[in-house]
Amino acid sequence: MASELRVFTVPGIPEVDLGVDLGALIGDAVVNAGLRIESGDVFVIAQKVVSKTEGAVVALKDVAPSPLASQWAAAHGRDAATTEVVLRESRRIVRMQRGIIISETQHGFVCANAGVDGSNVQPGYVTVLPRDSDVSAARLQSALSTRFGVPIATIVSDTFGRPWREGVVNVALGVAGLLPLLDYRGQRDTFGRALQTTVIAVADELAGAAELVMGKTKRAPVAIVRGAAEWAGQGSGAMLLRHPSTDLFR
Amino acid sequence: MASELRVFTVPGIPEVDLGVDLGALIGDAVVNAGLRIESGDVFVIAQKVVSKTEGAVVALKDVAPSPLASQWAAAHGRDAATTEVVLRESRRIVRMQRGIIISETQHGFVCANAGVDGSNVQPGYVTVLPRDSDVSAARLQSALSTRFGVPIATIVSDTFGRPWREGVVNVALGVAGLLPLLDYRGQRDTFGRALQTTVIAVADELAGAAELVMGKTKRAPVAIVRGAAEWAGQGSGAMLLRHPSTDLFR
Repeated sequence: MASELRVFTVPGIPEVDLGVDLGALIGDAVVNAGLRIESGDVFVIAQKVVSKTEGAVVALKDVAPSPLASQWAAAHGRDAATTEVVLRESRRIVRMQRGIIISETQHGFVCANAGVDGSNVQPGYVTVLPRDSDVSAARLQSALSTRFGVPIATIVSDTFGRPWREGVVNVALGVAGLLPLLDYRGQRDTFGRALQTTVIAVADELAGAAELVMGKTKRAPVAIVRGAAEWAGQGSGAMLLRHPSTDLFR
Repeated sequence: MASELRVFTVPGIPEVDLGVDLGALIGDAVVNAGLRIESGDVFVIAQKVVSKTEGAVVALKDVAPSPLASQWAAAHGRDAATTEVVLRESRRIVRMQRGIIISETQHGFVCANAGVDGSNVQPGYVTVLPRDSDVSAARLQSALSTRFGVPIATIVSDTFGRPWREGVVNVALGVAGLLPLLDYRGQRDTFGRALQTTVIAVADELAGAAELVMGKTKRAPVAIVRGAAEWAGQGSGAMLLRHPSTDLFR
């Protein structure tokens, strides 16, 4: 395992919009901040800026709510157009109770409101999750590795709630250049017994660590985790999705 | 938010057993390693060593399995005595399918096998979760703060699986000297809109960050997260437990 991790933000990322070259923008911010990039650095990038630059943004005035969305919104004090976007982003409703919608998104994530979010977006708009977060992560990984001349890894992250526990934690939606799961099966414990079931979701723990420095109200949508080079490899965020057939909670 | 975090292990923690003064042991290891402790450092301590030193260990030969435990174990190729311990540690079975038991423990955690674990324990024994992880965390927090003359925080952690996502992540069972939840509600986003629902589970993200350096097969059951002093305060792990009345998945 890593002997030491350092986690710090990339300062100076400006507000972004459709068509901005996010890789170039992050690279410029790194250079302007005088940060030196090392091989194996993990760039954790908030989904929100990825969605904005990719146009994964919906104007609510253009959305005609279905009867289901309208009725649900009226019953629970929600916005009907936003609710309609949530339903369109979903391929399976997991829970729809007490004003809360937990659904499986078109990408396979299970989360509240299908990842649709109106915070840190212009009024009248919501962001949806990137069309393919792994593709987004790969594009940024390629751009930043080329820019700095060393292989780096990327995680596109968002904060998800959890059953049973209060609060949200940052998790990895898209991953590139990193093995998201560390598999201890077959290794032996300190008593020589084979470890049976321990697979660590390294990418989610890296995303969570990054969140601690990124904040929500400060404009710090990018953080770097240094000391994670041992997990470099060909991986994806899709590897973190439990297949519905092995899931006991949907 | 923190501008930079550093995460590193406390090396040289020996194998522990019932009655060992864990706070003194960790303090000695810190001193022997030449680490200098700073105000606000968060010590993340694996549940396993806490359970062992507190005697939260069960000899399987002393456990008489109930018919339920025996039948389940036989049907799914599990150990009957271990299954019996799982049932005794549980106050509610959330799922019992495909050889997997997800239950709510006597403490209120929802996890696989009620936290009962045979890895890194002598053959013939299993550990159970500490009787009260917040009490354990508070004892260690007091001991280490006194030892080093500065207020530190402690997290007693364990790795839990999650619905919907592959892999386990480290979470906070017990917390002392730290506010486990960071509440953004009422603050405003970069567009001046009030943030509605964002409460970050800081203690879980800190535990996850620590896991990245602690490993499973190496004997590194203690890590320090530095740069987290802004979250110092009076908190507990119990604050991270979602009340069953607001939970949609049990």
